[in-house]
Order: sequence, then C-alpha cells, then structure tokens
Amino acid sequence: MNMWSNREALLEKIRAQMHDKRYQHTLGVAASAKQLAERFGADPEKAELAGFLHDYCKCWPVEKMLEILVRHDMPTELLEGEKELWHAFAAAIVIQTELGVTDTEILQAVRYHTTGRAGMSMLEKVVCVADYIEPNRNYPGVEEIRTLAQHDLDAALAHALGGTIRFLIEKQKTVFPLTLIAYNDLVSQKGRAGGFNG
Amino acid sequence: MNMWSNREALLEKIRAQMHDKRYQHTLGVAASAKQLAERFGADPEKAELAGFLHDYCKCWPVEKMLEILVRHDMPTELLEGEKELWHAFAAAIVIQTELGVTDTEILQAVRYHTTGRAGMSMLEKVVCVADYIEPNRNYPGVEEIRTLAQHDLDAALAHALGGTIRFLIEKQKTVFPLTLIAYNDLVSQKGRAGGFNG
Repeated sequence: MNMWSNREALLEKIRAQMHDKRYQHTLGVAASAKQLAERFGADPEKAELAGFLHDYCKCWPVEKMLEILVRHDMPTELLEGEKELWHAFAAAIVIQTELGVTDTEILQAVRYHTTGRAGMSMLEKVVCVADYIEPNRNYPGVEEIRTLAQHDLDAALAHALGGTIRFLIEKQKTVFPLTLIAYNDLVSQKGRAGGFNG
Repeated sequence: MNMWSNREALLEKIRAQMHDKRYQHTLGVAASAKQLAERFGADPEKAELAGFLHDYCKCWPVEKMLEILVRHDMPTELLEGEKELWHAFAAAIVIQTELGVTDTEILQAVRYHTTGRAGMSMLEKVVCVADYIEPNRNYPGVEEIRTLAQHDLDAALAHALGGTIRFLIEKQKTVFPLTLIAYNDLVSQKGRAGGFNG
C-alpha cells in the first residue's frame, strides 16, 4: 500500500488500533514532528508519517507484542526488560510487515522513539522530541522542553531523556540502557561543542 | 608487604598520597565499611582495608592515572569517559602492583567503589555505601541513605547510585553506564523480591 495514496484509509487503520486519547496523541506527534522537521532540516513528510505510525502497537495486549518480538528474534535484554518499551520495537516490525513501510529512516524513528539510542538521525530525534512535546502533553517540565525545541533539538532531547531517567529513578524503576547511552551521546557531543548554553 | 603487620606504616603511606581532608574521608570510609561488613555479613577486616585503600590515587595528577590505565590496557570507554572515575580503576592496579594486595575481593571493591557494577559482591556493596555515608559526608539526601543502611544494604546502594545518576543529569554531565547497570540490577532484584519497602 502506498502510504500517501490514501491518507484517510491509513488514518482509519491507525485509529482502529488504539483508544481515542492515544489517537489524539498520535495526531499531535505527527503534527509536531512535521513542524520540527521543517525547523531542523529533516524530511517533513517522513516525520509526519513516522508520527502517525509510532504508537501503532501501543494499545495492543502485551502478549501480542511479545509474540511478535520473539518471532523476530529481538534481543533478550528487550524481552526481559521494561514492557513499556515493547510497543516501539513491535511497531517497527508491524508497520513493515503488515503496512509495507520500507523506508529505513522511518522504521528506525519508530523503533527508537521511546528509548533513543546513540547516534540518532535527525528524523529519529524529531520524532522522539515530538512525542515529548506534542500539544496534548502536560507534565512538569514540558514547557522547558518545548522552549528548547524552538532552537536546539539536541538540547531538547537531552533534557527530555534526562528527565525520563530521573523520573524512573524517583519511581525506583529500571532505566533502559539505550536511553542512558542516547543521553550520554547528546551530552558529550554538546560538551565538545561548548555546552547546551554555549 | 603484609598489610596488617605494620598498620601504621600502611596508613602513613596512604596519608602521603592525599591531602588531609581526603585522608579523613579515607579513615571514615574504612570505619563505616567495617561497621557495615559486621552488620551485613562481609569480612570486616577486608572491608576496613578496602576502605583505607579505595582513594589511594584520588589526589594524583590525571596524567599519572591515565598513564597507568593505558599501560594496563583499560577499556577505551573508561579512558574516553569521565576522568572522575579513573582513580578507582587506577587504585585497583596500584595497590596490587605497588602495595602487593592480592585479594581479589578487595581489588574489586576498590575498582568498583565509584561506579558500581552488575552483580556486586557484599564487600563491594559495603565499600560503595560506606563511601556515600562515612561520617564526614554531608550532602542533601545523605541521612536517607544512612537510615536505609541501618537495615537494607541494597536499598541504600540503589538509593545512593540513583541519586548520583540524577545529580549528574541535573548538571548535564554524562553517566557511566556501569552505574546505571548497577542501579538497574539492584532495582530489578528488589522488584522480584517485592520492592524496597516490601
């Protein structure tokens, strides 16, 4: 299926996977991702599409996600780690196998939208930040990330990922190592470039 | 040299490596480590000795530490990471090669006293927690760790490492992955056992 030949059909298919609040969030991420892509020089069309697709599996039963991850030989640390991360890796598989998305950049942006990773592409950063700041988001600190995202995508992402790590630790939860690696990667790059405020 | 045949000579040697405030901290860590070892079932004599030795290289010039780490083929991620961690890995080498400490448990406790790691031994935990709570320590949150260390060494350590990670992120600094892995390890074990308050 060509994603854009029938946008309405695609959106209906996405809508069928989730409850309404999640669908509103999905539309928000797509709009924010497109805007950020235009601002920071990623492909706006790919950013919007990745936004539409990023939470495709979010409301699926965990058993269904696990079955997909096992079938596609995902690493043990993912399968034994936090279940909240499964939807991103499952979605990257499902949108390829069931919806025919072949664009590697989009697949990676969906796969790493929750954890991040070292060496993220511009499109991955855009989708990850959009997920933190889309208009329906409302949590302590979101305005600071929105402000940073006006002019410094890396600073916004480092701040967002750092906030997630701190939040998880406050809740005595484990932190997916990829997220720390993504955070370290952004901070050490900025360190070399003179700091987030440099 | 037998460490305990001439305790005064050993302490003088340690004292010669550092300024007085660091030496007072060293004595504090040794005393706290011995106490924690008695409380939680590690070897009190090894704990005290590891405490005495843990910061042996802390006040050395970074160039001297780096030279030792390079000569002993330490991993690139350590050499390219935060310099604050070098002293622990350097000390584990120096106390073996120059002071003749051969006890693997003591060497590991010194090596991982700052970062922690997955699967820490009781002695490693004791020295790491002692470093956080020895009587000269005074920082926001230290009393909470001291209280936890009265009855739950893992909870104290998870709280301490988690606090360090949060602090580093607040300062926009990178976090050594070993520390996150140590934290995750403690939290997931506690999760299986019913939580820190379970």
